[in-house]
Amino acid sequence: MMPRGSADVRGEQLAALETECHALLTAPKITRLIERAQANAQVLEDWQQANLREMRRQRDQAMATPVLLVSRLARAAARTESFWAEARRENKFELFAPHLQEVLELVREKAGRLGQALNLPPYDALVDEFSPGVGTADIDVIFKALSRRLPTMIREAMEIQSRETVLPIAGKFSTGKQRQLIVEIMKAIGFPFDRGRLDEAEHPFTEGVTGDIRVTTRYEPTDPFNGLLGALHETGHAMYDLGTPAAWRDQPVGRDRGMTLEESQSLLMEMIVGRSRAFVQYLQPLLLRHFAVTGPEWEPDNVYRRLNRVHRGLVRVDADEMSYPLHILHRYELEKQLLAGELAVRDLPAAWNAGMQQRFGAEPQGYVDGCLQDVHWALGSFGYFPSYALGIVIAAQVWESLHAQLPEVELQISRGEFAGLFDWLRENVHGMGAKVPIKELVKQATDQPMGANALLRYLSGKYLGSAG
Amino acid sequence: MMPRGSADVRGEQLAALETECHALLTAPKITRLIERAQANAQVLEDWQQANLREMRRQRDQAMATPVLLVSRLARAAARTESFWAEARRENKFELFAPHLQEVLELVREKAGRLGQALNLPPYDALVDEFSPGVGTADIDVIFKALSRRLPTMIREAMEIQSRETVLPIAGKFSTGKQRQLIVEIMKAIGFPFDRGRLDEAEHPFTEGVTGDIRVTTRYEPTDPFNGLLGALHETGHAMYDLGTPAAWRDQPVGRDRGMTLEESQSLLMEMIVGRSRAFVQYLQPLLLRHFAVTGPEWEPDNVYRRLNRVHRGLVRVDADEMSYPLHILHRYELEKQLLAGELAVRDLPAAWNAGMQQRFGAEPQGYVDGCLQDVHWALGSFGYFPSYALGIVIAAQVWESLHAQLPEVELQISRGEFAGLFDWLRENVHGMGAKVPIKELVKQATDQPMGANALLRYLSGKYLGSAG
Repeated sequence: MMPRGSADVRGEQLAALETECHALLTAPKITRLIERAQANAQVLEDWQQANLREMRRQRDQAMATPVLLVSRLARAAARTESFWAEARRENKFELFAPHLQEVLELVREKAGRLGQALNLPPYDALVDEFSPGVGTADIDVIFKALSRRLPTMIREAMEIQSRETVLPIAGKFSTGKQRQLIVEIMKAIGFPFDRGRLDEAEHPFTEGVTGDIRVTTRYEPTDPFNGLLGALHETGHAMYDLGTPAAWRDQPVGRDRGMTLEESQSLLMEMIVGRSRAFVQYLQPLLLRHFAVTGPEWEPDNVYRRLNRVHRGLVRVDADEMSYPLHILHRYELEKQLLAGELAVRDLPAAWNAGMQQRFGAEPQGYVDGCLQDVHWALGSFGYFPSYALGIVIAAQVWESLHAQLPEVELQISRGEFAGLFDWLRENVHGMGAKVPIKELVKQATDQPMGANALLRYLSGKYLGSAG
Repeated sequence: MMPRGSADVRGEQLAALETECHALLTAPKITRLIERAQANAQVLEDWQQANLREMRRQRDQAMATPVLLVSRLARAAARTESFWAEARRENKFELFAPHLQEVLELVREKAGRLGQALNLPPYDALVDEFSPGVGTADIDVIFKALSRRLPTMIREAMEIQSRETVLPIAGKFSTGKQRQLIVEIMKAIGFPFDRGRLDEAEHPFTEGVTGDIRVTTRYEPTDPFNGLLGALHETGHAMYDLGTPAAWRDQPVGRDRGMTLEESQSLLMEMIVGRSRAFVQYLQPLLLRHFAVTGPEWEPDNVYRRLNRVHRGLVRVDADEMSYPLHILHRYELEKQLLAGELAVRDLPAAWNAGMQQRFGAEPQGYVDGCLQDVHWALGSFGYFPSYALGIVIAAQVWESLHAQLPEVELQISRGEFAGLFDWLRENVHGMGAKVPIKELVKQATDQPMGANALLRYLSGKYLGSAG
């Protein structure tokens, strides 16, 4: 809703609030209070202890990152983002490189300080912000398994799909009608429109708090699935936020368990539920009613095939669920090298292209489809990319357990009934808030250690018709 | 944009920010810094001195109103507002009375504390918050003049207007088209749509900061003038905010000079400019273009008569500019008596009706059109009502000066040119920020002490065709 020209003012407002929050968190009084609580920890029950641990975590992170560094990084990131956009327009990496260099140096300083405070290697300290308790050791095991299996599976899936026909869809789908369809589905899912909104945004996001939650999507006039899947992704985030424990609202332990778990919930809705046969079956009469479309291209089989096309695209955000993790692996390796100083910024484009050639068998034609396709590094978000892949790994693992305990979930979804799905998620995931670290949460919810196997089984079953 | 059910959450968020602001303002460090600056005041130039005075003013107000009192009042007001709405629906004053009593007692405590700190009588201390430097002594002089002259003038104007015909308008005017018309006019006025927005709201308001300013209005499908005049009112606020001195942005002295001056700028646009012959002339081809309306009822003469109909309505927000001040006089007397304990809450309805009988020659049929028509007292906003009448007084006085110095302003407005108008306002009103108290600002801008004469001359000239 912000006017285009107001970004600078919003930046100043956020920086002012950020500075105050930082001052509050790092005040000696807070440390004294935490220490006193710590000394009496034996009288605390487990939620209270977890809450205290999360308070300490926030305080430690704030202490380790001086406000001056935070604001220098924020300003450098804002500047670098605009050069990133210009470099994309002009297809000139050299416009971007010196600014990325500056951001990288500040991120290095932050990572070093955080690492010292948390007793972690620098990159792991960055990862920890988004995936509490998860480090490169965990990621490496999972990514190695994916890296070993996915290329062959993609080849096989494409081979199978090359024998299928996917009929194209045609027509114009007005924003108003797309919105009505999405609102109907969000209502069925349980999104509370009396305490939340659906709006439009160029880059979809979810913001707000329980009690006033805002979801956005963008509409593609020639493709009604685009806006819907975006909205499902964001509704996944929103339902997670809404399901956090009400008794601990506004307390650190009452919040979500970080971006990796957030992504697991959004990707569960967008990729696993939203592209399932059951959901397509539920969707078909709605498409008919909202858009008055008929014909073989709108039959469930064709819609399903359309939504689950595996392809070796070079752009992460257009990737199917099977090749998506490979995009992340690629970025994970590069960002670790950049941070460690093993890869110079000027050599990034060559390293990018070589990696794509190796993984996807093709190189991007320009920087927009290459190493300038994501804004994350410009914004200083190193250590964030693994969240996406870990998110889909966790989503598949959660789905497998949920499905085993609630075999009728697909039948329910095909009828537009989502209560079973979300009751399970609330009990096993959402309602846990930030009580335990990610790995423990996954273990408790699924009875298995966090790992790639469930995702590989899910993908095999879905795309290769085998048990994996 | 807020979902209906989210008011409680928003209230908590505002209360949290309010508490932090209060803590920052009342911190011993701030007092030490103010005292040190005070001791070196001789080296400050006049804007700096004024800035220091405004800082002190904010600190003094915060010191005088403990945060516990502020939050008790805020919570009582939120509760009372909902009982106010229920009492209106049920037409039962007794549902509202005990809650108003509670708010009134808290307001009394606040007024007493503020009065002690500012060395003012309690009611004057409340007025000072909205009209810095203005007290009941000033208000009494102005209101006495209005009270002496307006009733006769209203009678004469109605007598004259009873001989005119006003043709009714018919048709439906879509929100989209009304909005397009308003946006075109706001652009002509100079509202920066790249750093601001026009949105819809049940109760129009202006919010935001220079750099991100939000204006709202509401649309009446059968009357395109309603939404337009609402938008002009709010655009008047926005243009004032945008015109405050950029060099002092985010400093106390760089802000607006309080609600009375805000209302002077909004009412100047809504009442004086927006209902002038010149503006109607500018408007007519736009009406034709946006709504494709023709016929004698859309001719400038008829539109002008329609927008300037004097009537003795019992509802403040529907009042014409001539009887509007009488509504305020009525509330001013009652709220002073309520605060002083001279009028009991239970006797308010009878006192209200008696006053209306005396001033308007009629009594309301129900509380909705009577003493429950405004939300202000429920919210604890005692001392606010005079701002409206003082606002229109100042608007007329500013307009008189502006017109004398820029006689071509009406010709310009009739052509849709607003630069002359706003250049003058920026130089003489907006650009002064909070540098001087209201009376001094009005004196400097108009070369006359603040008083009712300009308004009386303006109304006489406009409605009675005489020089007043």
